Amino acid sequence: MILVTNDDGIIAPGIRALVEVAAKFDEVIVVAPDSPQSGQGHAITLNQPLKLRKVALFEGIDAYECSGTPVDCVKLAKNVLCKNKTIDLCLSGINHGANSSVNIIYSGTMSAAMEASIEKIPSIGFSLLDFSFDADFTGAKYWAEKLISAVFRKEMPGCNLLNVNIPSCSPEEIQGIKVCRQAEGTWVEEFQEGVDPRGETYYWLTGRFVSHESPESIDNDIWALSQKYVSVVPSGHDLTFYPAIPKFKHLENLH
Amino acid sequence: MILVTNDDGIIAPGIRALVEVAAKFDEVIVVAPDSPQSGQGHAITLNQPLKLRKVALFEGIDAYECSGTPVDCVKLAKNVLCKNKTIDLCLSGINHGANSSVNIIYSGTMSAAMEASIEKIPSIGFSLLDFSFDADFTGAKYWAEKLISAVFRKEMPGCNLLNVNIPSCSPEEIQGIKVCRQAEGTWVEEFQEGVDPRGETYYWLTGRFVSHESPESIDNDIWALSQKYVSVVPSGHDLTFYPAIPKFKHLENLH
Repeated sequence: MILVTNDDGIIAPGIRALVEVAAKFDEVIVVAPDSPQSGQGHAITLNQPLKLRKVALFEGIDAYECSGTPVDCVKLAKNVLCKNKTIDLCLSGINHGANSSVNIIYSGTMSAAMEASIEKIPSIGFSLLDFSFDADFTGAKYWAEKLISAVFRKEMPGCNLLNVNIPSCSPEEIQGIKVCRQAEGTWVEEFQEGVDPRGETYYWLTGRFVSHESPESIDNDIWALSQKYVSVVPSGHDLTFYPAIPKFKHLENLH
Repeated sequence: MILVTNDDGIIAPGIRALVEVAAKFDEVIVVAPDSPQSGQGHAITLNQPLKLRKVALFEGIDAYECSGTPVDCVKLAKNVLCKNKTIDLCLSGINHGANSSVNIIYSGTMSAAMEASIEKIPSIGFSLLDFSFDADFTGAKYWAEKLISAVFRKEMPGCNLLNVNIPSCSPEEIQGIKVCRQAEGTWVEEFQEGVDPRGETYYWLTGRFVSHESPESIDNDIWALSQKYVSVVPSGHDLTFYPAIPKFKHLENLH
Protein backbone atom coordinates (compact mmCIF):
# COMPACT_ATOMS: atom_id res chain seq x y z
CA MET A 1 0.00 0.00 0.00
CA ILE A 2 1.20 3.54 -0.78
CA LEU A 3 0.50 6.44 1.57
CA VAL A 4 0.22 9.85 -0.12
CA THR A 5 0.36 13.07 1.87
CA ASN A 6 1.49 16.68 1.46
CA ASP A 7 1.60 20.03 3.23
CA ASP A 8 -0.37 22.20 0.80
CA GLY A 9 -3.59 20.51 1.87
CA ILE A 10 -5.69 17.72 0.44
CA ILE A 11 -7.33 19.89 -2.22
CA ALA A 12 -4.05 21.15 -3.72
CA PRO A 13 -3.46 20.20 -7.38
CA GLY A 14 -0.02 18.80 -6.50
CA ILE A 15 -1.35 15.96 -4.37
CA ARG A 16 -3.84 15.04 -7.05
CA ALA A 17 -0.97 14.71 -9.52
CA LEU A 18 0.93 12.49 -7.08
CA VAL A 19 -2.10 10.29 -6.36
CA GLU A 20 -2.51 9.69 -10.10
CA VAL A 21 1.09 8.51 -10.33
CA ALA A 22 0.94 6.43 -7.15
CA ALA A 23 -2.19 4.60 -8.29
CA LYS A 24 -0.20 3.11 -11.18
CA PHE A 25 1.89 1.15 -8.68
CA ASP A 26 -0.30 -0.09 -5.85
CA GLU A 27 -3.33 0.47 -3.67
CA VAL A 28 -3.26 4.07 -2.40
CA ILE A 29 -4.44 5.76 0.78
CA VAL A 30 -4.42 9.56 1.03
CA VAL A 31 -4.11 11.24 4.42
CA ALA A 32 -3.42 14.94 4.11
CA PRO A 33 -4.06 18.18 6.01
CA ASP A 34 -7.46 19.86 5.70
CA SER A 35 -5.75 23.25 5.31
CA PRO A 36 -2.42 24.57 3.96
CA GLN A 37 0.46 23.64 6.28
CA SER A 38 3.46 25.06 4.46
CA GLY A 39 6.34 25.87 6.79
CA GLN A 40 5.05 23.57 9.52
CA GLY A 41 8.36 21.69 9.55
CA HIS A 42 8.29 18.67 11.82
CA ALA A 43 5.55 20.09 14.04
CA ILE A 44 3.29 17.61 15.83
CA THR A 45 0.07 18.34 17.68
CA LEU A 46 0.42 17.54 21.37
CA ASN A 47 -2.01 19.87 23.10
CA GLN A 48 -5.22 19.16 21.25
CA PRO A 49 -7.05 16.22 19.70
CA LEU A 50 -6.95 15.48 15.99
CA LYS A 51 -9.83 14.79 13.66
CA LEU A 52 -9.90 12.61 10.56
CA ARG A 53 -12.64 12.94 7.98
CA LYS A 54 -13.17 10.65 5.01
CA VAL A 55 -13.47 12.61 1.77
CA ALA A 56 -14.60 11.68 -1.72
CA LEU A 57 -11.92 13.53 -3.66
CA PHE A 58 -10.09 10.80 -5.55
CA GLU A 59 -12.14 8.28 -7.47
CA GLY A 60 -11.76 4.76 -6.12
CA ILE A 61 -9.17 5.81 -3.54
CA ASP A 62 -9.56 6.00 0.24
CA ALA A 63 -8.79 9.55 1.31
CA TYR A 64 -8.89 11.33 4.67
CA GLU A 65 -8.39 14.95 5.58
CA CYS A 66 -6.76 15.58 8.93
CA SER A 67 -6.99 18.61 11.20
CA GLY A 68 -3.30 18.40 12.12
CA THR A 69 0.11 18.89 10.59
CA PRO A 70 1.71 16.82 7.81
CA VAL A 71 3.64 14.78 10.41
CA ASP A 72 0.39 14.16 12.31
CA CYS A 73 -1.08 12.80 9.05
CA VAL A 74 1.70 10.23 8.76
CA LYS A 75 1.39 9.22 12.42
CA LEU A 76 -2.38 8.77 12.09
CA ALA A 77 -2.04 6.87 8.84
CA LYS A 78 0.47 4.42 10.31
CA ASN A 79 -1.01 4.01 13.77
CA VAL A 80 -4.75 4.34 13.20
CA LEU A 81 -5.87 4.00 9.57
CA CYS A 82 -3.28 1.43 8.47
CA LYS A 83 -2.79 -0.23 11.84
CA ASN A 84 -3.28 -3.69 10.37
CA LYS A 85 -1.79 -3.02 6.94
CA THR A 86 1.73 -2.44 5.68
CA ILE A 87 2.64 0.89 4.14
CA ASP A 88 5.30 -0.01 1.58
CA LEU A 89 5.99 3.51 0.43
CA CYS A 90 5.15 7.06 1.48
CA LEU A 91 4.96 9.78 -1.15
CA SER A 92 4.69 13.40 -0.09
CA GLY A 93 3.81 16.30 -2.37
CA ILE A 94 3.92 17.24 -5.09
CA ASN A 95 4.79 20.41 -3.22
CA HIS A 96 3.96 23.75 -4.82
CA GLY A 97 7.40 25.36 -4.48
CA ALA A 98 11.01 24.27 -3.91
CA ASN A 99 12.23 22.20 -1.00
CA SER A 100 15.86 22.19 -2.04
CA SER A 101 18.73 23.22 0.23
CA VAL A 102 17.85 24.25 3.80
CA ASN A 103 14.14 24.33 2.91
CA ILE A 104 13.96 20.66 3.85
CA ILE A 105 14.08 21.85 7.49
CA TYR A 106 11.03 24.13 7.21
CA SER A 107 9.00 22.00 4.84
CA GLY A 108 5.94 20.15 6.04
CA THR A 109 6.08 18.07 2.86
CA MET A 110 9.60 16.86 3.56
CA SER A 111 8.93 16.46 7.28
CA ALA A 112 6.01 14.15 6.50
CA ALA A 113 8.28 12.09 4.28
CA MET A 114 10.96 12.11 6.98
CA GLU A 115 8.48 10.97 9.62
CA ALA A 116 7.61 7.96 7.48
CA SER A 117 11.31 7.23 6.98
CA ILE A 118 11.88 7.34 10.76
CA GLU A 119 9.16 4.69 10.94
CA LYS A 120 11.24 2.59 8.49
CA ILE A 121 8.87 3.30 5.60
CA PRO A 122 10.69 4.11 2.34
CA SER A 123 9.68 7.62 1.50
CA ILE A 124 10.02 10.21 -1.23
CA GLY A 125 9.12 13.89 -1.09
CA PHE A 126 8.46 15.65 -4.39
CA SER A 127 8.49 19.39 -4.98
CA LEU A 128 8.01 21.45 -8.11
CA LEU A 129 9.73 24.82 -8.39
CA ASP A 130 6.45 26.61 -9.08
CA PHE A 131 4.30 28.08 -6.31
CA SER A 132 1.25 28.75 -8.44
CA PHE A 133 -2.03 26.91 -8.06
CA ASP A 134 -2.20 26.13 -11.76
CA ALA A 135 1.41 24.97 -12.04
CA ASP A 136 2.06 22.44 -14.81
CA PHE A 137 2.77 19.09 -13.14
CA THR A 138 3.35 17.19 -16.41
CA GLY A 139 7.13 16.99 -16.03
CA ALA A 140 6.93 16.35 -12.32
CA LYS A 141 4.56 13.42 -12.88
CA TYR A 142 6.80 11.94 -15.57
CA TRP A 143 9.88 11.98 -13.34
CA ALA A 144 8.00 10.95 -10.22
CA GLU A 145 6.83 7.83 -12.06
CA LYS A 146 10.37 7.07 -13.23
CA LEU A 147 11.78 7.45 -9.72
CA ILE A 148 9.05 5.50 -7.96
CA SER A 149 9.46 2.72 -10.50
CA ALA A 150 13.19 2.60 -9.76
CA VAL A 151 12.87 2.28 -5.99
CA PHE A 152 9.44 0.80 -5.21
CA ARG A 153 9.74 -2.64 -3.62
CA LYS A 154 13.49 -2.53 -4.29
CA GLU A 155 16.29 -2.20 -1.79
CA MET A 156 17.00 1.40 -0.84
CA PRO A 157 20.69 1.20 0.09
CA GLY A 158 20.87 2.17 3.75
CA CYS A 159 18.75 5.24 3.15
CA ASN A 160 14.98 5.34 2.89
CA LEU A 161 14.34 9.04 2.28
CA LEU A 162 14.73 10.95 -0.96
CA ASN A 163 14.22 14.69 -1.38
CA VAL A 164 13.25 15.24 -5.01
CA ASN A 165 12.90 18.67 -6.59
CA ILE A 166 11.74 19.23 -10.14
CA PRO A 167 12.68 22.33 -12.13
CA SER A 168 9.93 24.57 -13.42
CA CYS A 169 10.25 24.30 -17.17
CA SER A 170 8.59 22.42 -19.97
CA PRO A 171 9.00 18.64 -19.57
CA GLU A 172 11.15 18.44 -22.71
CA GLU A 173 13.66 20.88 -21.26
CA ILE A 174 14.41 18.72 -18.19
CA GLN A 175 17.92 17.33 -18.60
CA GLY A 176 17.56 14.22 -16.43
CA ILE A 177 18.39 13.42 -12.80
CA LYS A 178 21.28 14.45 -10.56
CA VAL A 179 21.84 12.64 -7.26
CA CYS A 180 23.44 15.23 -5.04
CA ARG A 181 23.76 16.81 -1.63
CA GLN A 182 21.66 19.52 0.03
CA ALA A 183 23.09 22.95 -0.91
CA GLU A 184 24.16 25.34 1.80
CA GLY A 185 21.96 28.43 1.90
CA THR A 186 19.67 30.48 4.08
CA TRP A 187 16.73 32.85 4.01
CA VAL A 188 17.31 36.56 4.24
CA GLU A 189 14.27 37.69 6.18
CA GLU A 190 12.52 40.97 5.85
CA PHE A 191 9.47 41.16 8.06
CA GLN A 192 6.66 43.21 6.62
CA GLU A 193 5.72 45.55 9.45
CA GLY A 194 2.23 46.99 9.79
CA VAL A 195 -0.40 48.23 12.21
CA ASP A 196 -3.53 46.16 12.78
CA PRO A 197 -7.10 47.54 13.18
CA ARG A 198 -6.56 47.81 16.96
CA GLY A 199 -3.40 49.88 16.58
CA GLU A 200 -0.98 47.08 17.42
CA THR A 201 2.17 46.53 15.42
CA TYR A 202 2.43 43.23 13.59
CA TYR A 203 5.22 41.49 11.70
CA TRP A 204 4.63 39.23 8.72
CA LEU A 205 7.37 36.91 7.58
CA THR A 206 8.76 37.40 4.10
CA GLY A 207 12.22 37.03 2.63
CA ARG A 208 14.28 35.51 -0.13
CA PHE A 209 16.52 32.48 -0.33
CA VAL A 210 20.25 33.03 -0.79
CA SER A 211 22.57 30.21 -1.78
CA HIS A 212 25.93 30.06 -0.03
CA GLU A 213 27.42 27.77 -2.64
CA SER A 214 30.20 28.92 -4.95
CA PRO A 215 29.44 28.90 -8.68
CA GLU A 216 32.01 26.10 -9.13
CA SER A 217 30.16 23.83 -6.73
CA ILE A 218 28.30 21.34 -8.92
CA ASP A 219 27.44 18.57 -6.46
CA ASN A 220 24.38 20.15 -4.82
CA ASP A 221 20.66 20.44 -5.47
CA ILE A 222 20.58 24.18 -6.17
CA TRP A 223 23.14 23.73 -8.95
CA ALA A 224 21.31 20.72 -10.39
CA LEU A 225 18.02 22.61 -10.51
CA SER A 226 19.69 25.67 -12.09
CA GLN A 227 20.83 23.35 -14.89
CA LYS A 228 17.29 21.99 -15.31
CA TYR A 229 18.03 18.64 -13.72
CA VAL A 230 15.70 16.90 -11.30
CA SER A 231 17.61 16.89 -7.99
CA VAL A 232 17.56 13.80 -5.78
CA VAL A 233 19.09 14.18 -2.31
CA PRO A 234 19.35 10.99 -0.23
CA SER A 235 18.44 12.24 3.22
CA GLY A 236 18.22 11.18 6.85
CA HIS A 237 17.22 12.38 10.27
CA ASP A 238 20.55 12.24 12.08
CA LEU A 239 21.56 15.84 12.76
CA THR A 240 24.82 14.93 14.49
CA PHE A 241 27.73 16.83 12.96
CA TYR A 242 30.23 13.99 13.22
CA PRO A 243 33.43 15.86 12.26
CA ALA A 244 32.94 18.10 15.30
CA ILE A 245 32.74 15.31 17.90
CA PRO A 246 36.53 14.92 18.34
CA LYS A 247 36.94 18.71 18.25
CA PHE A 248 34.58 19.17 21.21
CA LYS A 249 35.97 16.28 23.28
CA HIS A 250 37.81 18.82 25.47
CA LEU A 251 34.44 19.68 27.00
CA GLU A 252 34.62 16.31 28.78
CA ASN A 253 37.36 17.82 30.97
CA LEU A 254 34.90 20.25 32.56
CA HIS A 255 34.02 19.52 36.19
CA MET B 1 24.50 40.12 23.36
CA ILE B 2 22.90 36.78 24.24
CA LEU B 3 19.48 35.80 22.93
CA VAL B 4 17.50 33.45 25.16
CA THR B 5 14.46 31.58 23.90
CA ASN B 6 12.62 28.29 24.47
CA ASP B 7 9.54 26.32 23.45
CA ASP B 8 7.81 25.89 26.80
CA GLY B 9 6.81 29.54 26.77
CA ILE B 10 8.20 32.66 28.37
CA ILE B 11 6.73 31.94 31.82
CA ALA B 12 8.25 28.45 32.13
CA PRO B 13 10.70 27.99 35.02
CA GLY B 14 13.30 26.56 32.65
CA ILE B 15 13.80 29.78 30.71
CA ARG B 16 14.12 31.72 33.96
CA ALA B 17 16.94 29.40 35.01
CA LEU B 18 18.68 29.92 31.67
CA VAL B 19 18.30 33.71 31.79
CA GLU B 20 19.96 33.73 35.21
CA VAL B 21 22.93 31.84 33.82
CA ALA B 22 23.13 33.90 30.61
CA ALA B 23 23.16 37.18 32.54
CA LYS B 24 26.49 36.19 34.11
CA PHE B 25 28.13 36.41 30.66
CA ASP B 26 26.69 39.34 28.75
CA GLU B 27 23.71 41.58 28.06
CA VAL B 28 20.64 39.39 27.53
CA ILE B 29 17.50 39.71 25.43
CA VAL B 30 14.66 37.24 25.88
CA VAL B 31 12.27 36.51 22.99
CA ALA B 32 10.08 33.50 23.68
CA PRO B 33 6.63 32.18 22.80
CA ASP B 34 3.60 33.49 24.70
CA SER B 35 2.26 29.92 25.00
CA PRO B 36 3.68 26.39 25.17
CA GLN B 37 5.09 25.33 21.80
CA SER B 38 6.45 21.87 22.53
CA GLY B 39 6.58 19.66 19.46
CA GLN B 40 6.48 22.61 17.08
CA GLY B 41 9.69 21.46 15.42
CA HIS B 42 10.98 23.90 12.84
CA ALA B 43 7.53 25.38 12.15
CA ILE B 44 7.37 28.98 10.97
CA THR B 45 4.31 31.18 10.68
CA LEU B 46 3.65 32.12 7.06
CA ASN B 47 -0.09 32.67 6.87
CA GLN B 48 -0.67 35.15 9.66
CA PRO B 49 1.06 38.13 11.23
CA LEU B 50 3.10 37.88 14.41
CA LYS B 51 2.88 40.01 17.52
CA LEU B 52 5.64 40.94 19.95
CA ARG B 53 4.86 42.24 23.41
CA LYS B 54 7.37 43.61 25.88
CA VAL B 55 7.04 41.94 29.28
CA ALA B 56 8.45 42.73 32.71
CA LEU B 57 9.35 39.21 33.75
CA PHE B 58 13.12 39.33 34.23
CA GLU B 59 14.54 42.16 36.33
CA GLY B 60 16.80 44.42 34.32
CA ILE B 61 16.50 42.33 31.17
CA ASP B 62 14.65 43.16 27.95
CA ALA B 63 12.08 40.47 27.32
CA TYR B 64 9.42 39.98 24.65
CA GLU B 65 6.72 37.39 24.28
CA CYS B 66 5.87 36.39 20.74
CA SER B 67 2.65 34.98 19.32
CA GLY B 68 4.53 32.59 17.03
CA THR B 69 6.69 29.50 17.15
CA PRO B 70 10.18 29.19 18.68
CA VAL B 71 11.74 29.60 15.21
CA ASP B 72 9.61 32.72 14.65
CA CYS B 73 11.06 34.11 17.91
CA VAL B 74 14.60 33.73 16.63
CA LYS B 75 13.75 35.28 13.27
CA LEU B 76 12.07 38.26 14.94
CA ALA B 77 14.94 38.69 17.40
CA LYS B 78 17.53 38.73 14.65
CA ASN B 79 15.67 40.72 12.01
CA VAL B 80 13.55 43.12 14.07
CA LEU B 81 14.57 43.52 17.71
CA CYS B 82 18.34 43.11 17.23
CA LYS B 83 18.49 44.48 13.70
CA ASN B 84 21.31 46.83 14.61
CA LYS B 85 22.99 44.67 17.24
CA THR B 86 25.05 41.51 17.11
CA ILE B 87 23.73 38.37 18.74
CA ASP B 88 26.89 36.56 19.87
CA LEU B 89 25.16 33.52 21.27
CA CYS B 90 21.69 31.99 21.29
CA LEU B 91 20.62 29.85 24.24
CA SER B 92 17.41 27.85 24.04
CA GLY B 93 15.71 26.18 26.97
CA ILE B 94 16.12 24.97 29.56
CA ASN B 95 13.58 22.57 28.12
CA HIS B 96 11.31 20.69 30.48
CA GLY B 97 11.95 17.18 29.13
CA ALA B 98 14.54 15.36 27.02
CA ASN B 99 15.60 16.37 23.54
CA SER B 100 18.06 13.54 23.06
CA SER B 101 18.06 11.19 20.07
CA VAL B 102 15.42 11.80 17.39
CA ASN B 103 13.61 14.28 19.63
CA ILE B 104 15.81 17.01 18.19
CA ILE B 105 13.61 16.79 15.07
CA TYR B 106 10.34 17.46 16.92
CA SER B 107 11.66 19.91 19.48
CA GLY B 108 10.81 23.59 19.25
CA THR B 109 13.64 24.29 21.69
CA MET B 110 16.25 22.66 19.47
CA SER B 111 14.70 24.07 16.30
CA ALA B 112 15.05 27.59 17.71
CA ALA B 113 18.70 26.88 18.46
CA MET B 114 19.15 25.42 14.99
CA GLU B 115 17.54 28.44 13.36
CA ALA B 116 20.09 30.68 15.08
CA SER B 117 22.90 28.37 13.96
CA ILE B 118 21.67 28.57 10.35
CA GLU B 119 21.99 32.33 10.76
CA LYS B 120 25.65 31.77 11.79
CA ILE B 121 24.92 32.50 15.45
CA PRO B 122 26.62 30.03 17.84
CA SER B 123 23.82 28.31 19.62
CA ILE B 124 23.18 25.85 22.43
CA GLY B 125 19.94 24.11 23.32
CA PHE B 126 19.57 22.83 26.88
CA SER B 127 17.08 20.24 28.08
CA LEU B 128 16.53 18.66 31.48
CA LEU B 129 15.14 15.14 31.66
CA ASP B 130 12.27 16.22 33.89
CA PHE B 131 8.90 17.31 32.49
CA SER B 132 7.53 18.70 35.72
CA PHE B 133 6.85 22.38 36.31
CA ASP B 134 8.79 22.36 39.58
CA ALA B 135 11.78 20.44 38.23
CA ASP B 136 15.07 21.14 40.02
CA PHE B 137 17.26 23.14 37.63
CA THR B 138 20.24 23.38 40.00
CA GLY B 139 22.37 20.80 38.17
CA ALA B 140 21.27 22.05 34.78
CA LYS B 141 22.30 25.61 35.66
CA TYR B 142 25.68 24.47 36.94
CA TRP B 143 26.52 22.59 33.74
CA ALA B 144 25.00 25.23 31.46
CA GLU B 145 27.33 27.79 33.01
CA LYS B 146 30.34 25.49 32.56
CA LEU B 147 29.49 24.85 28.91
CA ILE B 148 28.69 28.45 28.02
CA SER B 149 31.93 29.53 29.65
CA ALA B 150 33.84 27.02 27.51
CA VAL B 151 32.43 28.14 24.18
CA PHE B 152 31.27 31.76 24.53
CA ARG B 153 33.34 34.11 22.38
CA LYS B 154 35.62 31.17 21.53
CA GLU B 155 35.99 29.37 18.25
CA MET B 156 33.41 26.64 17.76
CA PRO B 157 35.27 24.24 15.46
CA GLY B 158 33.23 24.16 12.25
CA CYS B 159 30.04 23.56 14.18
CA ASN B 160 27.94 26.20 15.90
CA LEU B 161 25.11 24.13 17.37
CA LEU B 162 25.20 21.99 20.49
CA ASN B 163 22.35 19.82 21.75
CA VAL B 164 22.83 19.50 25.51
CA ASN B 165 20.73 17.20 27.69
CA ILE B 166 21.03 17.04 31.45
CA PRO B 167 20.08 13.94 33.44
CA SER B 168 17.40 14.25 36.08
CA CYS B 169 19.25 13.50 39.30
CA SER B 170 20.77 15.45 42.13
CA PRO B 171 23.61 17.72 40.93
CA GLU B 172 26.18 15.72 42.89
CA GLU B 173 25.25 12.53 41.04
CA ILE B 174 26.04 13.97 37.60
CA GLN B 175 29.20 12.24 36.34
CA GLY B 176 30.41 14.95 33.97
CA ILE B 177 30.06 15.52 30.21
CA LYS B 178 30.07 13.16 27.25
CA VAL B 179 30.43 14.53 23.72
CA CYS B 180 28.57 12.06 21.56
CA ARG B 181 26.27 11.41 18.63
CA GLN B 182 22.48 11.45 18.45
CA ALA B 183 21.15 7.98 19.37
CA GLU B 184 18.94 6.09 16.95
CA GLY B 185 15.44 5.69 18.27
CA THR B 186 11.80 6.39 17.57
CA TRP B 187 8.44 6.95 19.21
CA VAL B 188 5.96 4.14 19.44
CA GLU B 189 2.69 5.96 19.07
CA GLU B 190 -0.57 5.01 20.64
CA PHE B 191 -3.27 7.52 19.85
CA GLN B 192 -5.80 7.95 22.61
CA GLU B 193 -9.13 7.60 20.84
CA GLY B 194 -12.27 9.25 22.17
CA VAL B 195 -15.59 10.79 21.22
CA ASP B 196 -16.08 14.52 21.56
CA PRO B 197 -19.23 16.27 22.84
CA ARG B 198 -20.59 16.39 19.27
CA GLY B 199 -20.19 12.66 18.76
CA GLU B 200 -17.12 12.91 16.55
CA THR B 201 -14.16 10.60 17.02
CA TYR B 202 -10.90 12.26 17.97
CA TYR B 203 -7.33 11.05 18.27
CA TRP B 204 -4.86 12.42 20.79
CA LEU B 205 -1.17 11.76 20.34
CA THR B 206 0.60 9.80 23.04
CA GLY B 207 3.38 7.24 22.97
CA ARG B 208 6.74 6.23 24.38
CA PHE B 209 10.28 6.57 23.14
CA VAL B 210 12.15 3.41 22.20
CA SER B 211 15.91 3.40 21.68
CA HIS B 212 17.22 1.37 18.77
CA GLU B 213 20.75 1.32 20.13
CA SER B 214 22.37 -1.89 21.31
CA PRO B 215 23.41 -2.01 24.99
CA GLU B 216 27.07 -2.09 23.91
CA SER B 217 26.75 1.19 22.04
CA ILE B 218 28.37 3.80 24.28
CA ASP B 219 28.94 6.69 21.90
CA ASN B 220 25.42 8.16 21.89
CA ASP B 221 23.37 10.57 23.99
CA ILE B 222 20.87 8.04 25.31
CA TRP B 223 23.73 5.97 26.75
CA ALA B 224 25.45 9.03 28.23
CA LEU B 225 22.26 10.15 29.96
CA SER B 226 21.59 6.64 31.29
CA GLN B 227 25.02 6.83 32.94
CA LYS B 228 24.17 10.23 34.46
CA TYR B 229 26.41 12.19 32.13
CA VAL B 230 25.43 15.48 30.53
CA SER B 231 25.23 14.69 26.79
CA VAL B 232 26.59 17.17 24.26
CA VAL B 233 25.84 16.43 20.60
CA PRO B 234 27.49 18.72 18.04
CA SER B 235 24.72 19.18 15.50
CA GLY B 236 23.97 20.71 12.11
CA HIS B 237 21.20 21.27 9.62
CA ASP B 238 22.48 19.23 6.68
CA LEU B 239 20.17 16.26 6.32
CA THR B 240 22.00 14.79 3.33
CA PHE B 241 22.84 11.13 3.94
CA TYR B 242 26.22 11.23 2.20
CA PRO B 243 27.03 7.49 2.18
CA ALA B 244 23.94 6.93 0.03
CA ILE B 245 24.85 9.38 -2.75
CA PRO B 246 27.09 6.94 -4.70
CA LYS B 247 24.60 4.14 -4.10
CA PHE B 248 21.79 6.08 -5.76
CA LYS B 249 23.86 7.36 -8.70
CA HIS B 250 22.22 4.74 -10.94
CA LEU B 251 19.09 6.91 -10.86
CA GLU B 252 20.95 9.32 -13.15
CA ASN B 253 20.54 6.74 -15.93
CA LEU B 254 16.76 7.20 -15.97
CA HIS B 255 15.39 8.97 -19.01
